Amino acid sequence: MTKAIYPGSFDPVTLGHLSIIERAAETFDEVIVAVLKNDSKKPLFSVSERVSMLEEVTSHIENVKILYFEGLLVDFANECGVNTIVRGLRAITDFEYELQMAQTNKALSHNIDTVFFTTDVEYSYLSSSSVREIAKFGGNIDKFVPESIISKVYEKYK
Amino acid sequence: MTKAIYPGSFDPVTLGHLSIIERAAETFDEVIVAVLKNDSKKPLFSVSERVSMLEEVTSHIENVKILYFEGLLVDFANECGVNTIVRGLRAITDFEYELQMAQTNKALSHNIDTVFFTTDVEYSYLSSSSVREIAKFGGNIDKFVPESIISKVYEKYK
Amino acid sequence: MTKAIYPGSFDPVTLGHLSIIERAAETFDEVIVAVLKNDSKKPLFSVSERVSMLEEVTSHIENVKILYFEGLLVDFANECGVNTIVRGLRAITDFEYELQMAQTNKALSHNIDTVFFTTDVEYSYLSSSSVREIAKFGGNIDKFVPESIISKVYEKYK
Amino acid sequence: MTKAIYPGSFDPVTLGHLSIIERAAETFDEVIVAVLKNDSKKPLFSVSERVSMLEEVTSHIENVKILYFEGLLVDFANECGVNTIVRGLRAITDFEYELQMAQTNKALSHNIDTVFFTTDVEYSYLSSSSVREIAKFGGNIDKFVPESIISKVYEKYK
Amino acid sequence: MTKAIYPGSFDPVTLGHLSIIERAAETFDEVIVAVLKNDSKKPLFSVSERVSMLEEVTSHIENVKILYFEGLLVDFANECGVNTIVRGLRAITDFEYELQMAQTNKALSHNIDTVFFTTDVEYSYLSSSSVREIAKFGGNIDKFVPESIISKVYEKYK
Amino acid sequence: MTKAIYPGSFDPVTLGHLSIIERAAETFDEVIVAVLKNDSKKPLFSVSERVSMLEEVTSHIENVKILYFEGLLVDFANECGVNTIVRGLRAITDFEYELQMAQTNKALSHNIDTVFFTTDVEYSYLSSSSVREIAKFGGNIDKFVPESIISKVYEKYK
Repeated sequence: MTKAIYPGSFDPVTLGHLSIIERAAETFDEVIVAVLKNDSKKPLFSVSERVSMLEEVTSHIENVKILYFEGLLVDFANECGVNTIVRGLRAITDFEYELQMAQTNKALSHNIDTVFFTTDVEYSYLSSSSVREIAKFGGNIDKFVPESIISKVYEKYK
Repeated sequence: MTKAIYPGSFDPVTLGHLSIIERAAETFDEVIVAVLKNDSKKPLFSVSERVSMLEEVTSHIENVKILYFEGLLVDFANECGVNTIVRGLRAITDFEYELQMAQTNKALSHNIDTVFFTTDVEYSYLSSSSVREIAKFGGNIDKFVPESIISKVYEKYK
Repeated sequence: MTKAIYPGSFDPVTLGHLSIIERAAETFDEVIVAVLKNDSKKPLFSVSERVSMLEEVTSHIENVKILYFEGLLVDFANECGVNTIVRGLRAITDFEYELQMAQTNKALSHNIDTVFFTTDVEYSYLSSSSVREIAKFGGNIDKFVPESIISKVYEKYK
Repeated sequence: MTKAIYPGSFDPVTLGHLSIIERAAETFDEVIVAVLKNDSKKPLFSVSERVSMLEEVTSHIENVKILYFEGLLVDFANECGVNTIVRGLRAITDFEYELQMAQTNKALSHNIDTVFFTTDVEYSYLSSSSVREIAKFGGNIDKFVPESIISKVYEKYK
Repeated sequence: MTKAIYPGSFDPVTLGHLSIIERAAETFDEVIVAVLKNDSKKPLFSVSERVSMLEEVTSHIENVKILYFEGLLVDFANECGVNTIVRGLRAITDFEYELQMAQTNKALSHNIDTVFFTTDVEYSYLSSSSVREIAKFGGNIDKFVPESIISKVYEKYK
Repeated sequence: MTKAIYPGSFDPVTLGHLSIIERAAETFDEVIVAVLKNDSKKPLFSVSERVSMLEEVTSHIENVKILYFEGLLVDFANECGVNTIVRGLRAITDFEYELQMAQTNKALSHNIDTVFFTTDVEYSYLSSSSVREIAKFGGNIDKFVPESIISKVYEKYK
């Protein structure tokens, strides 16, 4: 059985993230979405809020499980018994950083490999941070996040 | 009549910015230079200082107007009745970020388009932040900012 | 009156090209689409075929004119009395090449400036050469070229 | 059962290719290596020679099968009943081209997705064309291709 | 006699830095490693700790000297009577930033030139900040920093 | 004594090449400019013409010698007893290709290292192939090649 882990901050989950999750779930037998607990960076949503939102928007996909982790990703992947990390690639700057992380993770734990999906073209410019920036000024985020998430993002800026 | 808006922090305005303003003013009938009011980022110059400096260094160009704005650029452009955003491109990292902003702005307001000018080669390495860094240590900024701005930058670091 | 020239091979014109033409026509008072006569590269369509196809697919835009040229673009722009070149940007490799051309053209004729539009995300991966490659093997090019062009491309490979 | 297809010219197969094949074979239940028959480009090795060499160097991996194809990759993938294309990523220029191909293939056949593996750092600079260039001048290709291939490459340049 | 200066934060020195120092010492008659005193960025190691660690790991190279500096690099290089700056290049994002710094430094002091070495492939993904991140969570940094540095990094996170 | 080799096609030598040669000659005790004999690519100038032109435009620099070579650069460098290759970097695409060549050359001959100079900003867009393209159509190449070369390039296109 092929298993993969898709790590991220998901603060909040975007339609770009959801597209990667759906496609990974078609490629692998099981996909663990791993939410990074990064309290020192003062995320907009708490880790449990982020887990809940991901569970809600992926409830239609059977072979997806939402977990959270602290510390090094390779340690968490090994605990879960997973050898494959999934990441989305949007653009050049992404690629540089992602390549660096993939090589570092392989150096830390040789059994771990990273595979990349390219983000769908319609989400190629999309990031959680631009969603937060737009919502902060009351802009329209309908095209950027799953429908059930929209009001939750605006509430944070009230 | 063709109108364009050139947004930025201009903290401080550089010779690279001035070159883009001059060239945009030759291409479009009217150019609005829009200074971003971003107090949370603790700019070196206040927004009114930045507006004054821009008015001073563009006083020789008739079809340029200096304004400032808060919030989303697309909202401000729509208020001004302008459909075209002008941006300068220096290099790859710029391009990635600028492309992302252009696509996001188009998604937010479909009537808005972004056109890019490439920075003149002699200013291709120039940024407001490197000007601030150099001035902070007493380095020579003569080749980087308009003449009337030079002493104002040094004064901030006294 | 603001005028711009949009040069290219257009072998054949794609939906990405058409999007740039439409947006340039909204930004400038007049747009000249300039087809490069490059017989030595053995184009799929002759220059007169390419001019005809462009006339057909831009017939709904009033301020667009289709011409062809040989030799240096800056010479042709100067003959036409146009100071602004329009180009579309798809991606990094494009950007490098386009930046080089823009700087070269400015060095050849200082009055000439280049402005860039970014290609719409849905056409960001599209090129005339991939259209030709796909058509050659009977693949579906419906999403890539204007409707009236489709059969003309397939005919070339019969 | 998860299946993937790894297309390429493999003219000749390098240690970089072999590393991608081995890692894909650990990630997916079955991997088809698909050799492109591209006679018009005058390859160094014929398609049947390339298939033989790949069979030889992958004989230790059970879930790998070597096939060849002509025409569009998406058509061949659909014939094989495979929805996932595997590609290796070495660097930026690769990424641009690969991203374009991945988006084009998805536009041609919406069920097809592309996943990328990053090339191992020690092969990050390696390409079939540099192997050919080095062998042509009698340079040492021991670090670049599988051992059993070495003499076959030199023979072609005798 | 050819002299070169290799500036950086070295917080901490990595095997990638050491490789650049060794190669610069083979190319130039004398190499000054210049540690940036940047207290405002709250480095993990003080500037004197960083100088000590560099002295320790370069003790086998005769023509290397470790110094520290504050302020502008070009001023320090001129004080030392050195015209050549050495920098390592890992990847694209590096290149952009490094190119900008090299051009800025040349504009500040025309006698100063920058030469780049490419990082060895096995260190191409390595940075001081990823070393700090990994050590913080107790990960293995054996492949990333010189042996004598390992325990010093872990101690900082106790 | 530090020695370096600067390889290239120089078809023809540009002001960008000349700038790299002058700066390398200030950094190293001796610089060998190595002209690639690549008859199969049908260069505009023969290898002996290219050697002559380089000798003419570098006659003011004492520590520069012009040679030509066939085959692998690392073999020629080893014959000359030189361990350092010098290359100029203009832009991203350059960087990718140059990085690949530098790593390949190091794999072929471990004693060989490559150092990069960045091209002066005013020549950052310049290439021998664009010089040839412009001259072919009678464009002005005064800003691109050394004065004594200008007429020789035009003569080739008569």
